[in-house]
Amino acid sequence: MDNEKLTPRSENFSEWYNQLIQRAELADNAPVRGCMVVRPLGWALWENIQSALDKRFKDTGHVNAAFPLLIPMSFLQKEKEHVKGFSPELAVVTHGGGQELEEPLVVRPTSETIIGYMYSKWIKSYRDLPVLINQWGNVVRWEMRTRPFLRTLEFYWQEGHTAHATEKEADEETMRMLEVYTRFAVDEAAVPVIPGRKSDTERFAGAVRTYSIEAMMGDTKALQSGTSHLLGQNFAKAFEIQYLDENNTQQYCWTTSWGLSTRFIGAIIMTHGDDQGLVLPPKLAPIQIVIVPIYKNDEERSKVMPFIENLKGVLSDFRIKVDDRTEVTPGFKYNDWEMRGVPVRLEVGPRDVEKNSVMSARRDIPGRDGKKILSLEGLSGEISNLLKEIHTSMYEKAKAFRDSHIFDPKDYEELKTTIEKGWAFSWWCGDGSCEAKVKEDTKATTRCIPLDQPGGKGKCIVCGKEAHEKVYFSKAY
Amino acid sequence: MDNEKLTPRSENFSEWYNQLIQRAELADNAPVRGCMVVRPLGWALWENIQSALDKRFKDTGHVNAAFPLLIPMSFLQKEKEHVKGFSPELAVVTHGGGQELEEPLVVRPTSETIIGYMYSKWIKSYRDLPVLINQWGNVVRWEMRTRPFLRTLEFYWQEGHTAHATEKEADEETMRMLEVYTRFAVDEAAVPVIPGRKSDTERFAGAVRTYSIEAMMGDTKALQSGTSHLLGQNFAKAFEIQYLDENNTQQYCWTTSWGLSTRFIGAIIMTHGDDQGLVLPPKLAPIQIVIVPIYKNDEERSKVMPFIENLKGVLSDFRIKVDDRTEVTPGFKYNDWEMRGVPVRLEVGPRDVEKNSVMSARRDIPGRDGKKILSLEGLSGEISNLLKEIHTSMYEKAKAFRDSHIFDPKDYEELKTTIEKGWAFSWWCGDGSCEAKVKEDTKATTRCIPLDQPGGKGKCIVCGKEAHEKVYFSKAY
Repeated sequence: MDNEKLTPRSENFSEWYNQLIQRAELADNAPVRGCMVVRPLGWALWENIQSALDKRFKDTGHVNAAFPLLIPMSFLQKEKEHVKGFSPELAVVTHGGGQELEEPLVVRPTSETIIGYMYSKWIKSYRDLPVLINQWGNVVRWEMRTRPFLRTLEFYWQEGHTAHATEKEADEETMRMLEVYTRFAVDEAAVPVIPGRKSDTERFAGAVRTYSIEAMMGDTKALQSGTSHLLGQNFAKAFEIQYLDENNTQQYCWTTSWGLSTRFIGAIIMTHGDDQGLVLPPKLAPIQIVIVPIYKNDEERSKVMPFIENLKGVLSDFRIKVDDRTEVTPGFKYNDWEMRGVPVRLEVGPRDVEKNSVMSARRDIPGRDGKKILSLEGLSGEISNLLKEIHTSMYEKAKAFRDSHIFDPKDYEELKTTIEKGWAFSWWCGDGSCEAKVKEDTKATTRCIPLDQPGGKGKCIVCGKEAHEKVYFSKAY
Repeated sequence: MDNEKLTPRSENFSEWYNQLIQRAELADNAPVRGCMVVRPLGWALWENIQSALDKRFKDTGHVNAAFPLLIPMSFLQKEKEHVKGFSPELAVVTHGGGQELEEPLVVRPTSETIIGYMYSKWIKSYRDLPVLINQWGNVVRWEMRTRPFLRTLEFYWQEGHTAHATEKEADEETMRMLEVYTRFAVDEAAVPVIPGRKSDTERFAGAVRTYSIEAMMGDTKALQSGTSHLLGQNFAKAFEIQYLDENNTQQYCWTTSWGLSTRFIGAIIMTHGDDQGLVLPPKLAPIQIVIVPIYKNDEERSKVMPFIENLKGVLSDFRIKVDDRTEVTPGFKYNDWEMRGVPVRLEVGPRDVEKNSVMSARRDIPGRDGKKILSLEGLSGEISNLLKEIHTSMYEKAKAFRDSHIFDPKDYEELKTTIEKGWAFSWWCGDGSCEAKVKEDTKATTRCIPLDQPGGKGKCIVCGKEAHEKVYFSKAY
């Protein structure tokens, strides 16, 4: 058996991405156009993302619930921006139980409307607030151009929906969840992200303000990796989400919503992956350590296998896998687990057994430079440190790549060439027409107005008018 | 504020069930007929069910994945029994992205077809077998009569789908998962269940054999609480799931599927619930211990609250909640948490603080008999034992109730009256016409032919012919 090589990233990034997903068995195409099957490795990765995020949600006071998949068409029409944004993307159920339905139902593209409706039933008094609910589930958006994880008809995500008594509280919640996403991306996925505000054009349909975390992929395109929306009173007014305040006066709630999806798996693939395949951040990797036995004959095998059995006990704090397949060579296994992104490989041969040690190899540093002999004594602690080191090193590498591909073009002409090689971080007057011109000329969109601003003022890179904020322009997924 | 009482179970069981679900805030009706919203308490219970089952699935070698929600209509038509069974219940998507679809898509009612299609792509050789995949998700079945948790248009479940090289292995898998469900029901949910085989009439559409676990609810009706199907080669032939065996010959796989759904929440409610509300089994209860502070004034409060703060540390191994609401009385809180089924309540007043103890109350034994003073010393161990005792006692009580409502009617006339007060356990010749007669005369169906048989033979309770197996007849949800 032979391991097939991927098309190199430098040659065709898009082809590399598609091949990697197939070869690493992360996902497969479903028979329905634009739908995907998330295979066991991909789903285990998503489960680890879920559990890391869910802990952060619960630590910030949220609880989970489940709202229905099917929403009456009329609900979407209650918020005019919302329906405008989502109408073109709806999957519509017109028949149920053999009968045509009186009112068509949409398969939820997002759940603000149905949750708004329920909140209006549940919320009566200021004592009921805040309501802090999250939902893990699937949604359907009828996209025309699809790619596994990045844009699929059905995708998996979490959507938080909160209701508050005041604008201030809702605003704080929006920012809190943006921070939760940022910390998750950096601390768990080793993906450097830039938190910021979306432009009005890029805002969620029905929101007052949308914030996002933006990451740079290996081809320098941007990927919006999580969003947090301040919905103001838009949905509260559309769905009559009201409460009696302490003075017995009816008030509309202030609501937020925020989501992160299986898209983030795309972010992990394209931030860390290399020409050998997937490189998974240790904290999220379904398998953190793969152990490969090396032997030439039964005698060697009889030494190596009991040693590995013992190793399993020593490493019980980690997610490990022993690859004891007999029909393939160790070399095949190395390539195979490199393709699947396992952070650490331990090779165990008869000599290692004699020396009471193992040979470790880092996925993120290919070849000899990533290899190290580790003694069995204190191994668990060594591995723990190694995984931390890998996390930090993956983060630093991705950040260095990103920072070296962010430019500050001196004028509009230079911006145009900048977009071909990375992101432009430029002053922008905030005008939609300047944004539109950049998009038309370069295909780049405004990614976000980062929270972290240089201060002061400058001249809009497009029109030259006074500008008070800098924005990232780039092509995006 | 006052706690509203439930309609007693003895008066109107069905009304009691509906009220309990509303008052305990387990679920609510969605705006679409027959759909439900699972509220945070209900969902937290489901999450605990998921995590208990998921561990058992992984311990038996299964992995999770996610298959698409939308299935081409033509897929269902490939297995003739399957399409006959599910056609009347389908929700159909006819429009997507503003266009009428060329082929209508069904919202999955179950996933044998789409998974069969994928398995036929993935499975090539005997080395790829067995494939042991489970999926957690939502499905839609257009039911006419719905009730929260028991029968809803959309429900949540897990569906395992496995493919094997031989019939024997598939058969073993079917029985293994039936045993997993049995152990889960008994050991985690304290729900006594009877594992057995379904009659041909009650078999899953497309299966060769269906097994189920059957539980008796508080009104003596049966609830099918989990199913495991041996699918034979039916789906393998419909979807060309084939492998090359060791002799290089193409063979069809043998497949199984098995599922347990949010219906099980209904089983927990109706097995354990009483006139005060929900009674949750300790291992699955989202909150295992609620702590209620008792004080008359600020001085007492200043003694009680720091004591409770310390208690939280002592009890950190458990899922606890301190109810420090100031707008309601302790009595209100007792009723409130009884409605929500929390297994243990700890009351802490100034006297308890002085004595360095707490007053514990068991949810499953109302009133004084369930109360006990527990010293702070060794409290964690005491509580751990108490929770175990509650589990056992809930199980024993439910089992005693069930066993005292299972009868062995001497003839068909007695069977008819038996059905009005419980289950009949009777010899049955296996003939569908006898089964149909019972259903017509009594509304009872065959629940299962239990694995545990008395042996020997008897006379069919309906036709008097020789019978080799006994079956449970009862009304069912």
